[in-house]
Amino acid sequence: MATLKVLNHPPSPSEDAEQLHKAFSGWGTNEQLIIDILAYRSAPQRNSIRKAYKEAYGEDLLKSLEKELTSDFERIVLLFTLDPAERDVCLANQCTSKSSSSNWIFMEIACTRSAHALLDVKRAYHARYKKSLEEDVAHHTTGDYRKLLFPLVSVLRYEGDEVNMSLAKSEAKILNEKIKDKQYNDDELIRIISTRSKAQLNATFNHYNSSFGNAITKDLKADPGDEFLKLLRAAIKCLTTPEQYFEKVIRLAINQMGSDEKALTRVVATRAEVDMVRIKEAYQKRNSVSLEQAIAGDTSGDYKRMLLALIGAGDI
Amino acid sequence: MATLKVLNHPPSPSEDAEQLHKAFSGWGTNEQLIIDILAYRSAPQRNSIRKAYKEAYGEDLLKSLEKELTSDFERIVLLFTLDPAERDVCLANQCTSKSSSSNWIFMEIACTRSAHALLDVKRAYHARYKKSLEEDVAHHTTGDYRKLLFPLVSVLRYEGDEVNMSLAKSEAKILNEKIKDKQYNDDELIRIISTRSKAQLNATFNHYNSSFGNAITKDLKADPGDEFLKLLRAAIKCLTTPEQYFEKVIRLAINQMGSDEKALTRVVATRAEVDMVRIKEAYQKRNSVSLEQAIAGDTSGDYKRMLLALIGAGDI
Repeated sequence: MATLKVLNHPPSPSEDAEQLHKAFSGWGTNEQLIIDILAYRSAPQRNSIRKAYKEAYGEDLLKSLEKELTSDFERIVLLFTLDPAERDVCLANQCTSKSSSSNWIFMEIACTRSAHALLDVKRAYHARYKKSLEEDVAHHTTGDYRKLLFPLVSVLRYEGDEVNMSLAKSEAKILNEKIKDKQYNDDELIRIISTRSKAQLNATFNHYNSSFGNAITKDLKADPGDEFLKLLRAAIKCLTTPEQYFEKVIRLAINQMGSDEKALTRVVATRAEVDMVRIKEAYQKRNSVSLEQAIAGDTSGDYKRMLLALIGAGDI
Repeated sequence: MATLKVLNHPPSPSEDAEQLHKAFSGWGTNEQLIIDILAYRSAPQRNSIRKAYKEAYGEDLLKSLEKELTSDFERIVLLFTLDPAERDVCLANQCTSKSSSSNWIFMEIACTRSAHALLDVKRAYHARYKKSLEEDVAHHTTGDYRKLLFPLVSVLRYEGDEVNMSLAKSEAKILNEKIKDKQYNDDELIRIISTRSKAQLNATFNHYNSSFGNAITKDLKADPGDEFLKLLRAAIKCLTTPEQYFEKVIRLAINQMGSDEKALTRVVATRAEVDMVRIKEAYQKRNSVSLEQAIAGDTSGDYKRMLLALIGAGDI
């Protein structure tokens, strides 16, 4: 469930393009007008606006936005305006140049996008970089991280609801044995998590919980300093309860000294059209304060207005 | 280049369906009529005939063929009549129940189909078996075989012609080092072979050849008894010169005592619409006898007639 509010009868793409062009003209930039348009249009509508803008003014709308805007506001407007597949391509490719948080973003894209959406990302990656997402993930990761991330990114996961209960039982047992032995990078453990459907994994983890007394994610908390273990746990969360994973990313981003605007921006831009309603519910439940209040208290200016619009708390 | 001869103005699908139905009626089956129709229709045309047959007679054409035909002739007619993606699904799924040659068929499908065709196979696998091809490959293979086959089957390989020459150089060096040390199951070696585009691999192997004095496939012949090494070498052949790989499969199938009809059937049914012209050229060159002659001398009856029709040497 998306928080994005799309007008029932929006202006035509060329009218929107013209308004945006006006927002860039004259003294200063009309940021509010940019928010009022782009934060209230669906992905296909934004694509049409980009096309109309290019036809009318000969420049990619994103280029114009880049020239006019700055800082966190620039980043969220650009990221949100992009088509979802292009956006993920952009996020993933940034990972191949940096290092630290890159593993997390590969994991997030691999585990929280639908099989169909992930396929669109791969196609957009081919078109843009003349190589595959998989080869870049394999090339830019090493050791256990590669062992986990490469199959997560590669597999076209089955998305049906069918569950094989005896398989869930036998694989829950395998997982429990490996985790007891602290073999977190075991081939079988990674095979199960990276290839089974989300419905099947859910059944397996439920069985794990009822048979072995703890949720699998709890048993994986054995060594809090182990970064690989953290990533593995997060992958399991992304595959089964993505809203809880994203709630935590936002919570840490806001609570951190100085805030992690990049993470906040990424989650809001990528989830506003997908499951932000659930993420907001999870946030309220976990923090006893609404996400709107938290964001309003932690950010400011146009950036704040854009965030609030995207999570469904704008003024329009 | 296909050897399949498709009529310029074929009868309508419902006329073909009617003729097929006639071929099944009365005393005995009219095998020649079945060949004259099915061996001269393209995959989309065969699909249309199946649809028309189902509408007119309430039964899947494949079911009717199964009832009427037997042995090798049955197998090739059924396999060829299937849509290419369904056919591969069928071949791959047979592998998950048996063991011996199964690794080879997974490899063959993964390395010789286009990225687009492999994607169609994955989708058809989801639809038919309610799980993914990748999870079955991972589940039914072990050790080094899984390590090689799983990424081969999973990656959506980039198919453009662009080549990064400095990457080709550095990766040729990595491959040579690993092969010298007999580390045939090395992570980096498998990463390169399973993720790089065919054009990129071609450049890498060319560089390997000119820098280190031997073709990579020659250096991989070190230990003739090593089954994994054989599979690795075959994968490299499939990725770079599939016609040579298939020529060899056919040659071994024909020369073997008693012939391996299953292999011959598989290659002819899967390549007739793809690159059988090149395979025939490779066969003639390597064996100084045409594939037509070899097949005519080694097979008989309706099976022979169907094979010859599919490799472009039928009577029509």
